[in-house]
Amino acid sequence: MAQKKIILTGDRPTGPLHLGHYVGSLINRVKLQDQYKQYVILADVQALTDNYDNPQKVHDNVLQVALDYLAVGIDPQKSTIFIQSMIPQIAELTIFYLNLVTVSRLSRNPTVKTEIAHKGYGESVTAGFLMYPVSQAADITIVKPNLVPVGEDQLPMVEQTNEIVRHFNRLYKKEVFPEVESLIPKMARLVGTDGKTKMSKSHGNAIYLCDDADTVTKKVMGMYTDPNHLKVSDPGAVEDNPVFIYLDAFDPDTAKVQELKDHYARGGLGDVVIKKYLAQVLNTFLEPIRTRRSEFAKDPHMVMDIILKGTEIVQGVAERTMCDVKEAMGIIYT
Amino acid sequence: MAQKKIILTGDRPTGPLHLGHYVGSLINRVKLQDQYKQYVILADVQALTDNYDNPQKVHDNVLQVALDYLAVGIDPQKSTIFIQSMIPQIAELTIFYLNLVTVSRLSRNPTVKTEIAHKGYGESVTAGFLMYPVSQAADITIVKPNLVPVGEDQLPMVEQTNEIVRHFNRLYKKEVFPEVESLIPKMARLVGTDGKTKMSKSHGNAIYLCDDADTVTKKVMGMYTDPNHLKVSDPGAVEDNPVFIYLDAFDPDTAKVQELKDHYARGGLGDVVIKKYLAQVLNTFLEPIRTRRSEFAKDPHMVMDIILKGTEIVQGVAERTMCDVKEAMGIIYT
Repeated sequence: MAQKKIILTGDRPTGPLHLGHYVGSLINRVKLQDQYKQYVILADVQALTDNYDNPQKVHDNVLQVALDYLAVGIDPQKSTIFIQSMIPQIAELTIFYLNLVTVSRLSRNPTVKTEIAHKGYGESVTAGFLMYPVSQAADITIVKPNLVPVGEDQLPMVEQTNEIVRHFNRLYKKEVFPEVESLIPKMARLVGTDGKTKMSKSHGNAIYLCDDADTVTKKVMGMYTDPNHLKVSDPGAVEDNPVFIYLDAFDPDTAKVQELKDHYARGGLGDVVIKKYLAQVLNTFLEPIRTRRSEFAKDPHMVMDIILKGTEIVQGVAERTMCDVKEAMGIIYT
Repeated sequence: MAQKKIILTGDRPTGPLHLGHYVGSLINRVKLQDQYKQYVILADVQALTDNYDNPQKVHDNVLQVALDYLAVGIDPQKSTIFIQSMIPQIAELTIFYLNLVTVSRLSRNPTVKTEIAHKGYGESVTAGFLMYPVSQAADITIVKPNLVPVGEDQLPMVEQTNEIVRHFNRLYKKEVFPEVESLIPKMARLVGTDGKTKMSKSHGNAIYLCDDADTVTKKVMGMYTDPNHLKVSDPGAVEDNPVFIYLDAFDPDTAKVQELKDHYARGGLGDVVIKKYLAQVLNTFLEPIRTRRSEFAKDPHMVMDIILKGTEIVQGVAERTMCDVKEAMGIIYT
């Protein structure tokens, strides 16, 4: 039997996961775990690069994110969930990779540039933040994956990883790491409830997988729709209207959604009515996830046990990878 | 009984050690090992920051430097010699420290600035090289030392380390690391045989502890002296004359050295004569070191065994340090 291809995916544990994560990655992971050998990293060390002054938040969200994983159907029998900070080999590999990347190359990384500007770091950017793409390359390659599912905004990170992989293999004259292929999901991002930008905790425009039904309804009732749709009788814009984007994403009754779109477009369908319908759709979608989540949440020790077992597996994998790395570099001492 | 104070010292294994190392650090280590708990790091990972394209050199010099240590009398019963790359916790600690240091602070580090200029790196400086003071802070603090013996040119490195230590302890509200005190040796550096700059492998002006008698004699005969001392009968300058600096450092017969200085100063003592004398003094000094070195060199497995045993001890120490670090940060998962 041919070896299954390896896939590496994961999240920074800085907050619970939301509908954006669901459509952008979680749903794919649930599918991919049948086809691939899937590793899911809880990237706490990476989260610390911009949360080093609040490690408690990162620590606590490891469990929260793991609960989200289990709730949506990531199956620990099929996927190996692990904690980054418990794999010291990732740090070792990062240190070796840092020698293969120039500071000016890091300063030009578009994703990092955008984030530095967005966070207003300017001159006070930390070394840890600037070099996080290198750390990320180590996170990824430590399990020698063939594929990483990423949003388009993360493509520069994969490019950086492959630059390092090529440089390493060429310099030490051994194909230690395979180049990594990006897997761009059909729906990489979901707009937030404000309709302005992608759903994100930091923008305060997210509906979380763990939100209760009332919270979901409240968030939906406050959603941005077509600002020109002033009276019920007015024709409304369906395109770029987050309410319809969410219906497309979460309502299995596509005929019904089409009917509502037509009605909204020609006028006569009020925002309150359509939002109430969306709230109901989302709660129907979220209810089984919430139920599973609260079941798992009753036994946090069991959940931590799942993660620690996964981490143990990755410790073995990472040890073998670092053995290959040091062998290629010729720095094994016996 | 009060706990012995801890001292951390070591070298980048990029070449065999020379007389400059002897007067600047080795002789002190031999004395300090009786008084302190002494750790001696073979900093191969740090050496890779500017030798990543030639790891073989670094690998091979680990044994060579260890032979020099044992030859001069660093006693594995008293000093713990260890290999950096076998302590993954140093890499872990480095990654956490990188969040506590800004890129602009690193760019201003005087030692690093000088080295970047000296090596002509310019814009192509690697991330690994720029951040090596952070890596060094981790090398040092992983064993929680009270003292580090350093030359004056290395003081900015100790300052950087203490900045990180203070920042860490303050941020995570626990005195995990003691501040490190510098121990500046009486004779921190020795001029090279060219009389121009400090003795260093890269300047090609070094006399190695493992040089045989003929090589030492040859190097001494080619030494720089007083360029105005043209005829034997001319008065010669004693000050800043490397021949007399070496005699001061290595000839136990201080009365004789004084006599020679006086003679040289008033004229009538030729360079060839004084150099022949110096060669004899150095070979007398080096002979027992060379003998011990070649004894140890006969059994490289035994030497590696000594280092690997020391490394094992430090692995335990480093694990406890990282436990303290993660506990202070609150990122232990159980």
